[in-house]
Amino acid sequence: MSSEASRNEPTSAALLSAIAAKEARVAVIGLGTIGLPLATFAAASGFRVRGLDIDPTRVGQINDRTVHFEYSAILRDLDATHMRATTSATDLAGTDAFFFCIPTPVDDHGRIVLAHLQNAAQAVAPHIRAGALVVLESSVEIGTTRWFAKVIEDASGKVAGRDYHLAYCPERYNPGLPSEQHAQVIYGKKVNLGGPLSYHNVPRVVGGIDASSTALATRIYSEILASKIQPVSAPEVAEAAKLMENIFRDVNIALANEFAEVLGALGVDTYEVVNAASSKGFAFLAHQPGLVGGECIPVDTWYLIRQAERVGVACDLMRAARKVNDGVVDHVVGATLDALENEGIALPGAKVTILGTAYKENVYDDRVSPSRQIAQRLRAKGIDAVLCDPVVKAHNHRTQDTLVDLPEAIRDANAVILATAHREFRDISPESLAKSVRTRILVDARNALDHKAFRAAGFRVTAWGRALDG
Amino acid sequence: MSSEASRNEPTSAALLSAIAAKEARVAVIGLGTIGLPLATFAAASGFRVRGLDIDPTRVGQINDRTVHFEYSAILRDLDATHMRATTSATDLAGTDAFFFCIPTPVDDHGRIVLAHLQNAAQAVAPHIRAGALVVLESSVEIGTTRWFAKVIEDASGKVAGRDYHLAYCPERYNPGLPSEQHAQVIYGKKVNLGGPLSYHNVPRVVGGIDASSTALATRIYSEILASKIQPVSAPEVAEAAKLMENIFRDVNIALANEFAEVLGALGVDTYEVVNAASSKGFAFLAHQPGLVGGECIPVDTWYLIRQAERVGVACDLMRAARKVNDGVVDHVVGATLDALENEGIALPGAKVTILGTAYKENVYDDRVSPSRQIAQRLRAKGIDAVLCDPVVKAHNHRTQDTLVDLPEAIRDANAVILATAHREFRDISPESLAKSVRTRILVDARNALDHKAFRAAGFRVTAWGRALDG
Repeated sequence: MSSEASRNEPTSAALLSAIAAKEARVAVIGLGTIGLPLATFAAASGFRVRGLDIDPTRVGQINDRTVHFEYSAILRDLDATHMRATTSATDLAGTDAFFFCIPTPVDDHGRIVLAHLQNAAQAVAPHIRAGALVVLESSVEIGTTRWFAKVIEDASGKVAGRDYHLAYCPERYNPGLPSEQHAQVIYGKKVNLGGPLSYHNVPRVVGGIDASSTALATRIYSEILASKIQPVSAPEVAEAAKLMENIFRDVNIALANEFAEVLGALGVDTYEVVNAASSKGFAFLAHQPGLVGGECIPVDTWYLIRQAERVGVACDLMRAARKVNDGVVDHVVGATLDALENEGIALPGAKVTILGTAYKENVYDDRVSPSRQIAQRLRAKGIDAVLCDPVVKAHNHRTQDTLVDLPEAIRDANAVILATAHREFRDISPESLAKSVRTRILVDARNALDHKAFRAAGFRVTAWGRALDG
Repeated sequence: MSSEASRNEPTSAALLSAIAAKEARVAVIGLGTIGLPLATFAAASGFRVRGLDIDPTRVGQINDRTVHFEYSAILRDLDATHMRATTSATDLAGTDAFFFCIPTPVDDHGRIVLAHLQNAAQAVAPHIRAGALVVLESSVEIGTTRWFAKVIEDASGKVAGRDYHLAYCPERYNPGLPSEQHAQVIYGKKVNLGGPLSYHNVPRVVGGIDASSTALATRIYSEILASKIQPVSAPEVAEAAKLMENIFRDVNIALANEFAEVLGALGVDTYEVVNAASSKGFAFLAHQPGLVGGECIPVDTWYLIRQAERVGVACDLMRAARKVNDGVVDHVVGATLDALENEGIALPGAKVTILGTAYKENVYDDRVSPSRQIAQRLRAKGIDAVLCDPVVKAHNHRTQDTLVDLPEAIRDANAVILATAHREFRDISPESLAKSVRTRILVDARNALDHKAFRAAGFRVTAWGRALDG
């Protein structure tokens, strides 16, 4: 597939100059996990940024600089001229470059939900000026960028390639802990923010609907980020690349989980085997067994499975990967029920504490949480399943769960499941846990705790992926 | 799993000194793809090596130094004191360290065939001296090293850990082209033989049945190879690590092939997508779509699937991977039949030439060849399927196929399938192929040829993983 220059392609020279001079006005639509870092780095590199979000609480936290995320320290140093959030699309008038970072979840059948993106496109479309650049960052099905152009056209009559530039550049953000060292980059001065995986150091892929769209998008990302920006021949290539990256992870974690099943039955420690295989660095990439959740990995695999169905491809491998990874919930629930039974504890009325609802340690994103599934499964047996996540509780005002504080959560518990390896949980000592709980049952779904120490404190420990004596 | 020191563990100090002084006598049992490089490097590093093989032709070619393999140049410089092959196990008397490199194929049901290894163990067992080291390198099911010890015990009464040392160290050899630059290492002088993936630069994993077995095996590999030798806690960990490495490749090639199916239907080029995703180097490892064959990747996945079955684990993901990779044969056959039909050529009597029977370019190993399956499938339709592989024909005297020379193979062909990207095939010009064939149909299963040039020469080109206009 090769891009085709439109005869009516909007002139891009003026915008290119404005981007180079940091005079182009930037708008980021959607200020969630993906949009907020982009807006922050765009502003820090010198652009005047307006961020649009439908959540007034989020907008307020961003404007008063109290929002908690990896780059809070950079955001705090930005003035309102460079970075201001709003709930009103009319505040985006005069924007030269629009970045859409809108959630695209899946429904209960694994089908992509484009309603949020459609609403955002319709709200913003009237404000897209002639010659402006529009970039989509949300993870999507293949072909969504062209669908998105159709939404804008239907809403405003503006045609991508004729009236404005359009490109797809998938986000590549791996959220982590807030760090004060990130405060070192302000207004275009690019310095190392703490390692190669910092937001601005991760390479990006850009596919425009025509050559000038690709060139403009590549240029503006080169101004905002310090990483290599790789142009590709079409938006579909960039869309597929994003799916391939995330499905690669899903499938390889599934492979580690399938090994954990087999090796567990054979009494071999999967973590040691992964470590040994990793010595073949040129042809192996380590993935650990474990629970898989969050808004990326499981979701992107379903996007492609559902899209492939519509063109008659079965995707047996991807389906198997999803089944294996979802199945880890069954293993964790099964190990917990087995342990309770072995201790002679009646399931109805037993208290089981699940530590962590976020999809990974030290983040507060609790979407598509395997912990919620574990709780549901336990509650169906009459068990009092208690969810505890201090990171989510402190920073995620949209959480749908009732989260109990750690001391109360573990008090008189009959079993404790570690589902997310937050620092707060890694720091729990076997002695203090032993004092709080009623029964000493520990199920470590993350291989994050010192099992020997917990066994020495009298705990029956089961750890996914570890041999029984591990 | 942790290794347990045996109370009767044979003394290892003397052998350790003999290894360090290169005075230990080495025997390599099985001089195939894996055994011959090991024997050659052991001899080149200074050990006196005897190689045992059941094939007198092979033994003759090794002894007269005419055998063709990647390190032929090193072998040629070795004298008979340091490297001599034999078909008689009695010639191994006096050996201190035995390395078993015996093929362990699968049968038609994907079950591991241990008969060759059993025969070899029984033949060599009488010659295992007290305190000797025995190392198994063959890829195997988990637990095979201990089974192997049982075979030796049954044959000779010698008990591993009591009478001799035993370790498992999986081979990690990726065969390539013979190269004259490899002649630079002789008798223990370790120099760079041409890159990090040269035989002696690839790290190894060693798992002994006890601490002294692991230590001895680690030491002797450290003398033979320049790479890091990583000890693990038990043979089972090393066995599982080898399976994990190869199954990782099988599953990830399957994922690339599944993407090729979906993206082909959507008109997107899988190779460009893999390249774009590769820019996420820290969390992605590129695998290309294509035919999968050979004695490692498909075979090792079946080992574990069959072993897992016996402990009640289904391995849905690995099965799906095997199905996807085997299915590439169907796609190649289907594309060929479609093209013949579109040209109005009757299938019975049509001539289809398959270029390449080796599992990868520039090697002559034609075991588990997808080309053979393609030929069978075509012949079932009455097609005259011709196999051509000059590399196999020149160097593999055991091949079971009738191989036709290239000029005759392509003469009057109605379709040509590129199945192995040997240099000889990459060098074919569109013009010369156009002159030879009867119908200009090219199916490139390796994405190895210049499709534009072949299309310009009038060929109908289909390439697996490429969009139709690629």
